[in-house]
Amino acid sequence: MSSSDFAPKVMKAIRWHKAFDIRVESVPVPKIQDPDDAIVKVTLAALCGSDLHIYRGHGGVEKVHISGHEFIGEVTELGANYGSHSQGRPELYSTLKVGDKVVSPFTVNCGECNVCRLGYTCRCPDGLLFGSPVLEGGQAQYIRVPKAGGTLFNLSDPKSWHSGLSHEMKKTALAGIADSSLLMLSDILPTGVFAALQAMNHPKVLPALTGRPWPSSFFPGDPSASMALEDRALTFAVIGLGPVGLCTCVSLLDMLSAQSVPFQIVAIDPVESRREKVMAVYNKIDEAGRGTGKFVAQSIDDAKNTVKTWTGGIGCTAVLEIVGNTSAISLAYDLVRPFGAIVSVGVHGEPQMPFTGRQLYNKNVSFDFGRCPVRVMFPMAFDLLVKRQDVFGGVGGPDSLVDRIVGPEEAPEMYAQFEQNKIGKVVFDMWK
Amino acid sequence: MSSSDFAPKVMKAIRWHKAFDIRVESVPVPKIQDPDDAIVKVTLAALCGSDLHIYRGHGGVEKVHISGHEFIGEVTELGANYGSHSQGRPELYSTLKVGDKVVSPFTVNCGECNVCRLGYTCRCPDGLLFGSPVLEGGQAQYIRVPKAGGTLFNLSDPKSWHSGLSHEMKKTALAGIADSSLLMLSDILPTGVFAALQAMNHPKVLPALTGRPWPSSFFPGDPSASMALEDRALTFAVIGLGPVGLCTCVSLLDMLSAQSVPFQIVAIDPVESRREKVMAVYNKIDEAGRGTGKFVAQSIDDAKNTVKTWTGGIGCTAVLEIVGNTSAISLAYDLVRPFGAIVSVGVHGEPQMPFTGRQLYNKNVSFDFGRCPVRVMFPMAFDLLVKRQDVFGGVGGPDSLVDRIVGPEEAPEMYAQFEQNKIGKVVFDMWK
Repeated sequence: MSSSDFAPKVMKAIRWHKAFDIRVESVPVPKIQDPDDAIVKVTLAALCGSDLHIYRGHGGVEKVHISGHEFIGEVTELGANYGSHSQGRPELYSTLKVGDKVVSPFTVNCGECNVCRLGYTCRCPDGLLFGSPVLEGGQAQYIRVPKAGGTLFNLSDPKSWHSGLSHEMKKTALAGIADSSLLMLSDILPTGVFAALQAMNHPKVLPALTGRPWPSSFFPGDPSASMALEDRALTFAVIGLGPVGLCTCVSLLDMLSAQSVPFQIVAIDPVESRREKVMAVYNKIDEAGRGTGKFVAQSIDDAKNTVKTWTGGIGCTAVLEIVGNTSAISLAYDLVRPFGAIVSVGVHGEPQMPFTGRQLYNKNVSFDFGRCPVRVMFPMAFDLLVKRQDVFGGVGGPDSLVDRIVGPEEAPEMYAQFEQNKIGKVVFDMWK
Repeated sequence: MSSSDFAPKVMKAIRWHKAFDIRVESVPVPKIQDPDDAIVKVTLAALCGSDLHIYRGHGGVEKVHISGHEFIGEVTELGANYGSHSQGRPELYSTLKVGDKVVSPFTVNCGECNVCRLGYTCRCPDGLLFGSPVLEGGQAQYIRVPKAGGTLFNLSDPKSWHSGLSHEMKKTALAGIADSSLLMLSDILPTGVFAALQAMNHPKVLPALTGRPWPSSFFPGDPSASMALEDRALTFAVIGLGPVGLCTCVSLLDMLSAQSVPFQIVAIDPVESRREKVMAVYNKIDEAGRGTGKFVAQSIDDAKNTVKTWTGGIGCTAVLEIVGNTSAISLAYDLVRPFGAIVSVGVHGEPQMPFTGRQLYNKNVSFDFGRCPVRVMFPMAFDLLVKRQDVFGGVGGPDSLVDRIVGPEEAPEMYAQFEQNKIGKVVFDMWK
């Protein structure tokens, strides 16, 4: 007799049926299908900007499925490959236990292939996206997690991941952080850190950070002349101030505050309420956390003028594009300097890239596209979450990352409001 | 009375008139127009793959002009801003003298603006491309070099640039290297090194080189688990085996031979004679110079299969695209792995980039587009030229970079043959 004999047989779930048609329904509780599976009882699940692609009917999805790829919960059942049968496999196969509190990256990954070992976990060939036609999502009372020993983070066992904090500090921090904050580790906070990290470590940003011109910037021992501080000024633009954009700004400020290089950031969104929220968040961060650079939130046209004025018409060192559509990536191109970097974590769709080859050649543009490998970004994101509880701690305030925590019955209305930019980050308490 | 009073008033020049119409004509010798100008007597000038864009009538060029952006020669006249009037300006304004032997990057740059100081010299706002409607080219007996004190390399004064070699070694090397080899420093050799350098220093290549998975690869002090050597194997593709592609292969092999990571390179071109040349060159390099990796030259279809076999269907760590058209950049996408890097130094034209946003998101693709900043790449390219005289030293052999040195009268025929892939690198001796 396994513990699942006592588990309920049906559960509440938020399901996508067709474009703009979200329903709250009673469906069977998922079962272990593969010995690598875990079943997780979902405490909280969140609504993400990228859920809107399927919500709006983009991408050719037809299959009715449970929505959502951001969830936190508790392990209720484990497949046969856990415990003593797991030698030589990722550590979690031997240490994960029923009852452990876990947060999941928004994609499954095996943790065992070359792609995972290189750190590119979100592109594991066995990877699957939660809340998609290929894998049921987290906006439900229970969820099946394939390859859970390669995928999950065990919040009950902070020794299972390395970060900049000691295990004791991690434990203390975990005890004080609300689940609605920890839930942000499933996607939006790591994605924000991923965007900022790629920008800060980009070869085209290196000359400013090292003080040595390109390509001497690659060679620590090169005695080439160092640059004056004024030549090293960094100008960044962040396009899109939804929840991920907000996390990106906080992460970028955190990384820049550790440098001694002048910087200026323009955060861009056409929606006034989002600009107000990012400024409210910025004003809450102490000077140690935001550094001594400039930070403004502006509309598209104002931002174009600001970048022109700040850089004498040259453009941004790097542009972080957090939207995922043609106009956002075009704006990124317009704003970036020659030999600048465009980091795009927005989920792009079918339209062709709106650039001619000549445009890209003529500006020596660099791009980094794609999805955050949450599995490997988690430690950095966790440390930032702990450090910036002043920002990430609250719910519902004008300066809070999370706007509302609601029961599943409100899902259809919340999806509609979120789609219309009338509300920010929404979290579902699936048991409310 | 200046030295120019003794100079000839007319000269031979190779001029573009319209698509496929190249003429050898007698035109006035250029004069100093600006106090920053130098006049250079051209010893040798080369024909470059990117000259073919204008030759074929692409890009909307209408103005009759002198062709060519690769030249080496001797200073015959300097503007008023040279010598003692040059305090606080680039060193060459005070040290360059009439009679000095110089090689020029293919674009002018001031050396004084923020863009130049950061090392991005080919995108100097005052930059101009030689052999274009805005600036007469180098396939002439004389050429006017604007901003020469920011642009030229003084081969008579090796102290004027820092490289990995001592001044004595540079002097000795310079005495032994033919002008037809030194001429390659104006474009194709630095461009090849630029492609290889960007690939080798790309953040997506870093995990293999450092042995630490992404993103630990960014943090030298991070104690994260190191990867097994088999996980670190690098797979590169070089697309396009014209002269720049050949330089790219030699440079990439040189950089990889200094690493202790397994690697494999597939060099790709549909033209058999180019594949044969690159293999002849490869076979000439000693083991210290080419490392212990695999190197093959293949047609497009064969290369696709090779990459599939080598990587288990995952794809290349980095693809170096040296062609500059839609099919080459599409092939680069097909060959690159998820979280791989595409470095494109090909001169792209008007066609729109052939990728949807989803394709780029779904593979986490990185791109680096654009022109080589020869001014700052020169020292690395020079050192490689010295080191690899076995490769770059000859003329006319099956394993020589330079196929022929001809007089200007042969220009129309050479342009036609080069355009039809019937001949490789051609150099014009303008005084022959």
